[in-house]
Amino acid sequence: MKSQLLSQLGRRTAEPPISWLMSVALARPNLISLAAGFTDNESLPVREARGLFDQMLRSPRTGQAALQYGTTLGDPTLRRLTAEHLQRLDGVRGKPKAYSPERMIITSGSQQLLYMVTEALCDAGDVVLVEDPTYFVYASILQSHGVQARGVRLERDGLDLSHLESVLERLKRSGDLMRVKLFYLVSYYQNPTGVTTSFAKKRATLALLKKYEASAGHPIYLLEDAAYRELRFTGEDVKSALAARRLSDRVILAGTYSKPFATGARVGFGFLPEPVFTTVTRIKGNHDFGTSNLLQQLLARALASGSYDAHRQQLRRRYAQKARVMRQALEKHFPADVEWWEPEGGLYFWARLPRSLPSGVKSKLFKAALSHDLLYVPGELCYADDSTRRKPNHEMRLSFGGATEANIREGIRRLGGSLRELL
Amino acid sequence: MKSQLLSQLGRRTAEPPISWLMSVALARPNLISLAAGFTDNESLPVREARGLFDQMLRSPRTGQAALQYGTTLGDPTLRRLTAEHLQRLDGVRGKPKAYSPERMIITSGSQQLLYMVTEALCDAGDVVLVEDPTYFVYASILQSHGVQARGVRLERDGLDLSHLESVLERLKRSGDLMRVKLFYLVSYYQNPTGVTTSFAKKRATLALLKKYEASAGHPIYLLEDAAYRELRFTGEDVKSALAARRLSDRVILAGTYSKPFATGARVGFGFLPEPVFTTVTRIKGNHDFGTSNLLQQLLARALASGSYDAHRQQLRRRYAQKARVMRQALEKHFPADVEWWEPEGGLYFWARLPRSLPSGVKSKLFKAALSHDLLYVPGELCYADDSTRRKPNHEMRLSFGGATEANIREGIRRLGGSLRELL
Repeated sequence: MKSQLLSQLGRRTAEPPISWLMSVALARPNLISLAAGFTDNESLPVREARGLFDQMLRSPRTGQAALQYGTTLGDPTLRRLTAEHLQRLDGVRGKPKAYSPERMIITSGSQQLLYMVTEALCDAGDVVLVEDPTYFVYASILQSHGVQARGVRLERDGLDLSHLESVLERLKRSGDLMRVKLFYLVSYYQNPTGVTTSFAKKRATLALLKKYEASAGHPIYLLEDAAYRELRFTGEDVKSALAARRLSDRVILAGTYSKPFATGARVGFGFLPEPVFTTVTRIKGNHDFGTSNLLQQLLARALASGSYDAHRQQLRRRYAQKARVMRQALEKHFPADVEWWEPEGGLYFWARLPRSLPSGVKSKLFKAALSHDLLYVPGELCYADDSTRRKPNHEMRLSFGGATEANIREGIRRLGGSLRELL
Repeated sequence: MKSQLLSQLGRRTAEPPISWLMSVALARPNLISLAAGFTDNESLPVREARGLFDQMLRSPRTGQAALQYGTTLGDPTLRRLTAEHLQRLDGVRGKPKAYSPERMIITSGSQQLLYMVTEALCDAGDVVLVEDPTYFVYASILQSHGVQARGVRLERDGLDLSHLESVLERLKRSGDLMRVKLFYLVSYYQNPTGVTTSFAKKRATLALLKKYEASAGHPIYLLEDAAYRELRFTGEDVKSALAARRLSDRVILAGTYSKPFATGARVGFGFLPEPVFTTVTRIKGNHDFGTSNLLQQLLARALASGSYDAHRQQLRRRYAQKARVMRQALEKHFPADVEWWEPEGGLYFWARLPRSLPSGVKSKLFKAALSHDLLYVPGELCYADDSTRRKPNHEMRLSFGGATEANIREGIRRLGGSLRELL
């Protein structure tokens, strides 16, 4: 045996794919970044937060409670309000178990929940299904744990169910189904494509996973990441998978207040069935025995006072406007043979170039854009490692979240110029 | 191969030893708990936090910056202030690398740092040295990762160095030294014993670990947990191991603002040498890509404005008084054949009963105390699993942090009564 300082996880944990992009951005002060996944800066609830803290810290009683340790599961009031909020969003009546605060945990952003669920369920060599493309930080989590990803095709209107079935069938035939623990689905205004998967497709996905459980020998969960749900600015809301009757005991829902309220506050949450709930709660005890109580009480007050809802309405108008600006710029500046998908919420447009034009970090296009001080996220960075297919390299993620309207217009103009040069 | 739903980590992660104690406390409204590791409630900086938030959120510029995402490593100002603060506490001049903000990361409490360092370095089957007894949540982290603990004896004046050497020697002879990654030391007012390890002993520990590195084939780190350092109320401060010249590249220091400022804010930090620093930073990217920026800016403002220092002075007086109350009660109510250790800081007294009197959760003493509505932490819960020795079962941790002065007096009176009955 060789002497090793770092653990297997330590050795596997790679540099995040976007840290290089971030260092590029820092080195160029005039750069326009359509790469960062930041939320809109101007609309952050500064005044609201000030008022809520002022109320909370005015009395020693509520102030001390907020500044003292809480519990590992999280503040009971925030858990109750969150469960009610989710059930209201889903339009579900009664007291179904799926929405019980008793199976909820508050986390440091939904990211922490994704990490802990993966820790709880996956050993090295296990398999997790992901959308193709998927959220790149989740792909990093899988990679660091030695978990294999299998991509399921994503279409303009959401998940490709027949491809999901063929992936499951192949895993069954190769005897690897017992290694499959979950399907990670970013269901609303997906990062990176902006695509939303309908409730009917979520239900069909759950039914498919259930069908293969007998061969797996254990449950296969749908890990629904609803991080962008409340950044909807047009179209209809879609029910979460928790609303799927008789199937919700296979749903792990990850949600967050970071994006719809304040990314600097980092409060997320999870709804989990047993035995995942108990296992994740214990893991959370070891991670940090509970998310900052002060932040939780801020969110509980924002929800209870109505200022959270008021803020969401304002955000909606704001992102609708920014998305409109990006669409108009794309219409004006992008060549006709570039396909782009307009989202109904979230922070991202997705663009597909002709296959002859690579978009990756080593491509002519990426370098040309950078030479004009414009940064985008190359699509190739958003595909998990899946040895059964090649990573596409002709797409890009364009974010309208953090940039100003002027920078969105100018950025797309520059990028359109580089595209025209190379096409 | 058997089909398994949970991962190995998921199956190993046990219920925390104190969650049962906490449920006992909840079920008895009249209970006096000398078990909880809470900090003093009355002295939490409610007014200070209100003022700091008010300043921060008064202007859109600073308000938006606080409510937006930060970076994975943490706020640059807080990192600089923290590095300066540590160097000042250690009384070290110049610009030594050990105190560089470039090797610092901000975490969600120091607990998260302990978790990530363990993830970065330890595989199942590896060995970590710990004090005997040690911080029980760290013991849980080791257990959940399948890491073996080896206890190093702790005396009234800190670590037993000759025992450390004999433990290392035994590991060398059995060929297990290559499995040893670190020694976890809670160096100030230790949880659970209140014992402080001197700087000379820390330096000697580092030298000993270094001596065995050749046989290990890799560095063996001292993971110094300084969580209680700033809760000193008497005696002299002790330099951290970072101050050990020529040895500090083997020191990982975990610190926190939670205990000296506000446990509800959960901001901790780590100083780490390479390659641990880079590995832990990447792991942090996967955990949560950065601790809440809002909380970090609160701490940065508390440090910069002087309100952090002023608060510490106030805390000092407060804990000195509470510790005095507990000492006087112990002198008055505890039988003479019970030995107890008085700390110079932190939150805990440690008591050793005659070996004939067990203190564990199934003991007569524990049940008698509970029947009088008094809860303590049995010493046996504070020992990591170490197959080379039996866990002592005649000690207890008594916390004066969270209880009121009246409850400390009354609690020790009740416990003294139970002791007298049984001795």
